[in-house]
Amino acid sequence: MNTIKELQHKIAELFDTRNYMSNPKELYEPIQYSLSQGGKRLRPLLSFMSCALYGGDLNEVKNAAIGLEIFHNFTLLHDDIMDESPLRRGMPSVYQKWDSNTAILSGDTMFVVAYEYVTETKPEYLIDTLRVFNQTAREVCEGQQYDMNFETQGYTTIEDYMEMIRLKTAVLIAAALKIGAIAAGAPKVEHQRIYDFGILIGLAFQLRDDFLDAFGNEETFGKPIGNDIVTDKKTYLYLKAYQLADTDTKTALDKAFALENKKEKIAKVLAIYDTLNILQITEAKINELYLEAKKLLKEVERPEDEKTEVYSFLMKLVKREV
Amino acid sequence: MNTIKELQHKIAELFDTRNYMSNPKELYEPIQYSLSQGGKRLRPLLSFMSCALYGGDLNEVKNAAIGLEIFHNFTLLHDDIMDESPLRRGMPSVYQKWDSNTAILSGDTMFVVAYEYVTETKPEYLIDTLRVFNQTAREVCEGQQYDMNFETQGYTTIEDYMEMIRLKTAVLIAAALKIGAIAAGAPKVEHQRIYDFGILIGLAFQLRDDFLDAFGNEETFGKPIGNDIVTDKKTYLYLKAYQLADTDTKTALDKAFALENKKEKIAKVLAIYDTLNILQITEAKINELYLEAKKLLKEVERPEDEKTEVYSFLMKLVKREV
Repeated sequence: MNTIKELQHKIAELFDTRNYMSNPKELYEPIQYSLSQGGKRLRPLLSFMSCALYGGDLNEVKNAAIGLEIFHNFTLLHDDIMDESPLRRGMPSVYQKWDSNTAILSGDTMFVVAYEYVTETKPEYLIDTLRVFNQTAREVCEGQQYDMNFETQGYTTIEDYMEMIRLKTAVLIAAALKIGAIAAGAPKVEHQRIYDFGILIGLAFQLRDDFLDAFGNEETFGKPIGNDIVTDKKTYLYLKAYQLADTDTKTALDKAFALENKKEKIAKVLAIYDTLNILQITEAKINELYLEAKKLLKEVERPEDEKTEVYSFLMKLVKREV
Repeated sequence: MNTIKELQHKIAELFDTRNYMSNPKELYEPIQYSLSQGGKRLRPLLSFMSCALYGGDLNEVKNAAIGLEIFHNFTLLHDDIMDESPLRRGMPSVYQKWDSNTAILSGDTMFVVAYEYVTETKPEYLIDTLRVFNQTAREVCEGQQYDMNFETQGYTTIEDYMEMIRLKTAVLIAAALKIGAIAAGAPKVEHQRIYDFGILIGLAFQLRDDFLDAFGNEETFGKPIGNDIVTDKKTYLYLKAYQLADTDTKTALDKAFALENKKEKIAKVLAIYDTLNILQITEAKINELYLEAKKLLKEVERPEDEKTEVYSFLMKLVKREV
């Protein structure tokens, strides 16, 4: 099996050799800008890993994997408008660099380009691949809607939150893995198994994101720490804190979140999180998901030594070192 | 062959029996709202007509035809944001009734739903259908971008304008016809012939729209007359007028378009159009496209009596009576 490094190299090559420019340039320049920024390219990597794990030919999954990555980038263009995010990967987001209309229309075009790649899947795997892709795309939209709903509604349960991040984040990771299994001609039971595995990994991945936003290292995380606290984002940490807090602590939390001074607000909220053991509780939840995922991976009907690379990558992913 | 009325009835049934509601309701309510407004449903009708013309089974084109109509409605949701159009089919547009974010995300979801329908095309016709659909979707985005470019740039040639309406309007009409031919298992040469026919019809259809906006009857047109003049829209009429005008008439046109009073502006511009024979010239251009289209339809390798319904519908369409 290829090492992760080799797969990452192949994917970088796939994207770096592609040019998305065409006419009208006002439409395609933002697409070129978005897709040449790189990013982790986690989703195509997962498709390649899964295809390799099931002994498939990487050429069979290549186009669908590119399609997934372009789809992911399309959602970022539109999400950044809706969430009013000025930055993406440390650069001005498309809606900020150009305007909302540009981000809408270039985003729509990226969505089509994603489908163009998926359409070039081998005919015998095309329908299965398209169905996964369609379902995932729809669920990602639903997840984004739930996320926006949560920010305006008074109370959100942890259960609702987990469902939201399943839709917004985990299904795309799961789909990336499933598409690899389909392209490798793996049996149907394995499609579902690797998908379920992906859901657990996706949830852990998002909780780690929540965790790092509060307890991470600004340099390795790549974003300012405490941003979720500053913007009152209803993360796992936030919801867990309110769930565990007694009446006095709830009042203290409300007061802390109402603070105007950003630095003071972050410090105060983190201090309360500390008294409630939010760090340990979140880490335990991530670990629980990780162990469940590991168990599913054990059930995958492939030789154990073929799974070694996946295990080691999984560890890194859940620890967010990739 | 089914009469147009019978086909229209079948299509109305297809849409009226469908419910697009799901959760979260904030995402699906605007979709239900948009798709239950009706409209002409011209595109699925053309798919049905073409499938019937080539002796196909309408069930084979049904899903792709629904997909095309949903795609068309998705583009309206996003276009209405970009063009700041408060009304659509006499009702508040989605971005106006809800907000831009809703129109973006519900629109994206409609795009996925469109692909879900297209995916349910018979496997042997799936790739061809998807390729038409993808290419068309991309070109419609390009057309919208050119349209926006034209509104901000100083000068647009009639040639550029015709290319813009080809992309923005005609390709979807052509694609609807082509998809019908594919689903009927017609020979490849016919796919291209009916597509080229559709482009001519689509161009004529859009020029008729430009024409009616200036010279139409408010009641049958369904929109206030003169809106393109009020908004300085660079239509075929506008561009032709500037192309034909001598220096003095150009100055008069500039002055007329600069008028603040809407009624006066419309009257003044129409008076200049009259001196330049814009009505007759536009009608002649539409007729030229119509005759070219008729010639192509004659070449279609089907019995002439099977084409009668198409001819009569074509007449109505180019006269904008449907």
